[in-house]
Amino acid sequence: MQEELLRVKKWIQDNQGKGTRFLQKLVQEGSTRGKESGAQAIVIEKCRELGLDVDIWEIGEDALLNHDSYCSDRKDYTGNPNLVAVLPGKGGGKSLILNGHIDVVPEGNVDDWEHDPFSGIVKDGKLFGRGSTDMKGGSVALLLAMEAIISSGISLKGDVIFQSVIEEESGGSGTLASVLRGYKADGAIIPEPTNLKVFPKQQGSMWFRITVKGRSAHGGTRYEGVNAIEKGMAVIKSLQELEKVRNLSINDPLYEKIPIPIPINIGKIQSGQWPSSVPDLCVIEGRIGVAPSESLREAEIQLEKCLEKLTESDPWFQHHPLEIEWFGGRWLPGNLDVDHPLMQTLAESFVSVKGEPPVIEASPWGTDGGILSKIGNTPVVVFGPGTTAVAHDVNEYIVLEDVFISAEIIAGVILKWCEIEK
Amino acid sequence: MQEELLRVKKWIQDNQGKGTRFLQKLVQEGSTRGKESGAQAIVIEKCRELGLDVDIWEIGEDALLNHDSYCSDRKDYTGNPNLVAVLPGKGGGKSLILNGHIDVVPEGNVDDWEHDPFSGIVKDGKLFGRGSTDMKGGSVALLLAMEAIISSGISLKGDVIFQSVIEEESGGSGTLASVLRGYKADGAIIPEPTNLKVFPKQQGSMWFRITVKGRSAHGGTRYEGVNAIEKGMAVIKSLQELEKVRNLSINDPLYEKIPIPIPINIGKIQSGQWPSSVPDLCVIEGRIGVAPSESLREAEIQLEKCLEKLTESDPWFQHHPLEIEWFGGRWLPGNLDVDHPLMQTLAESFVSVKGEPPVIEASPWGTDGGILSKIGNTPVVVFGPGTTAVAHDVNEYIVLEDVFISAEIIAGVILKWCEIEK
Repeated sequence: MQEELLRVKKWIQDNQGKGTRFLQKLVQEGSTRGKESGAQAIVIEKCRELGLDVDIWEIGEDALLNHDSYCSDRKDYTGNPNLVAVLPGKGGGKSLILNGHIDVVPEGNVDDWEHDPFSGIVKDGKLFGRGSTDMKGGSVALLLAMEAIISSGISLKGDVIFQSVIEEESGGSGTLASVLRGYKADGAIIPEPTNLKVFPKQQGSMWFRITVKGRSAHGGTRYEGVNAIEKGMAVIKSLQELEKVRNLSINDPLYEKIPIPIPINIGKIQSGQWPSSVPDLCVIEGRIGVAPSESLREAEIQLEKCLEKLTESDPWFQHHPLEIEWFGGRWLPGNLDVDHPLMQTLAESFVSVKGEPPVIEASPWGTDGGILSKIGNTPVVVFGPGTTAVAHDVNEYIVLEDVFISAEIIAGVILKWCEIEK
Repeated sequence: MQEELLRVKKWIQDNQGKGTRFLQKLVQEGSTRGKESGAQAIVIEKCRELGLDVDIWEIGEDALLNHDSYCSDRKDYTGNPNLVAVLPGKGGGKSLILNGHIDVVPEGNVDDWEHDPFSGIVKDGKLFGRGSTDMKGGSVALLLAMEAIISSGISLKGDVIFQSVIEEESGGSGTLASVLRGYKADGAIIPEPTNLKVFPKQQGSMWFRITVKGRSAHGGTRYEGVNAIEKGMAVIKSLQELEKVRNLSINDPLYEKIPIPIPINIGKIQSGQWPSSVPDLCVIEGRIGVAPSESLREAEIQLEKCLEKLTESDPWFQHHPLEIEWFGGRWLPGNLDVDHPLMQTLAESFVSVKGEPPVIEASPWGTDGGILSKIGNTPVVVFGPGTTAVAHDVNEYIVLEDVFISAEIIAGVILKWCEIEK
């Protein structure tokens, strides 16, 4: 295998310019929710060029919509397909899923970006743009690894199942649809931005929406009303307290270096229609992190109890109950044993490229890995280029060298895991 | 005059059903900003029926747009006219402006209303609906007073100048346009909902918009970002403190019974686009009350200094400065001497109807009276039916009896102030 591995690595090193241009094209084709088709078309074209068995479909089938773990507020998937592209093995080896998502989060306040959010501009070895790190850089690493193997004329025993899914940022219905379509394997790598760390465990998460009532009044006699924004601030304070309490209970050594292992993020607040009226409604939306050892329901109950406690302390809430909805995104946590063979294979490949063992941690965010492992019974490890510090932020970028290093490491895993057919 | 006064009062008493139906029609024709034309048409029809000299025009003339006190974010006044309708006197008497606004604030959360917000339904002597109290009930009282005098065949010496203006809720450009068109008088009554109290002084007010910056990040690593909502909460706390300090300095005895003479209302907050992102921008809008003795600029400076103080205490704000805009509504405060002849005339008419002297206070909110008095040099008293407790609130209503009592009292003022031409 050593000889093939060297060939594959050399191919990746020789084709860095090609890889950069491909990532650039992919970032420039922005793919926020509901607008995934353009970027997906670029990926599909590449898979056809590689001669993979391409499976393209618009998700939304009954089996998906009726599944227990399906949770989405999206009504229409038309025109924005899911993609699975298989490199079939000759038989006898283990299969491997390589899963990336094509959807990106919104670009935020455009004025705060130094360049256009979808520029794909390259400066000092970094490629900039929404989705560069989360996670088009990772998907490009997967495709480079596969192209290097194919171009080097290597045949494999086990199947390599590349996936470019939609909806990861909104609860994972793209990956769930792939699982329900039958795509399972002996192992999976998801190259989310781990900054080349290895994450066998992943934090789950859920979205919540809390509706807070006030009583409107003329702003000039605001004391005759009850301001829903002030009441909303009390709710946020309670959630900040809950976050503290929940994180005190986390003692998994993999979370040692994470400041807040399972954060509660307040992502959105909307209240009021008129500067001189007391607002009567405040809607708060956010995301609660779920520990690898915890179920989604357990986390839900903790948040619901926190609101009950607040209600007990404030007669206003007793007469105007807080409403909570668990809507949109739900990501199951992942919990792979650190001694699993896939972990060993990845660690070996990492050492062969980087000359040192990888850092192993628990991920501070949910991925589609929860669905792949819990619903699809596929052991999952999360490992890829890019850092979460810039994901979802303005001026998101990825260090190109890390894309190529990941590609080499993942190529090494494929050769070892799926085995070379001589 | 005693005989004429009795005839006029009797007419009003005999025509309560007609007055109720008119108010009902007016409330049913909702007139939130930009949609004033339907309700205005009903008022215009009534003024024509009364034989008044009707002046209807779409405001937006250069003299208005370039005036120092013009302050509006409205771009288009087309199709929603201002109205002034004059009952010309025979000469020799004092003139009187009767000013009401036709615009109403938005209805808020429709689900919280017991009936449709524009039902105009009557129950237990109350008429319900957005605008019933603020201030279509007051405008109907004005028109009933005028119709009673006209129908009783009484001629007056001084002009009665009825006004149905737009934009009171958004800064008073309707009344400012009337002043600039030449409509001034020896006195004015504005029947805003004072609950039959007499308000010679009125609180001014202004709108503000504060833009707060954060730094976005993935919600799963929220500690790598700075949440604009949390920073916005710090701004709101500072404004709550400022409100306390400002109100400690108010010692005008007319504000004795007002819990917060010059409130700061937080009317609107908007932040975030995505539950699992740390929001990088938070926009807060509100209204600051201005004391009768204070200039708008003085109040602006206090709020700006408050934000400067917050900035000094937080390095984040030093590097990401808060932005403040003074946008939209600006209402000049009013400050009529309690011994002005118009006050005396109103007090006498009040006693003749109610059998007791009126309660005299300072208004807890701005009105168009500031523009009429400061720009139009017209002495203004604010007095009318309805209570601010229900203005701008859900289930807004007005006690019909108070509409008719106001009409009688105002009719008495007209007869005395403008004088009867025998």
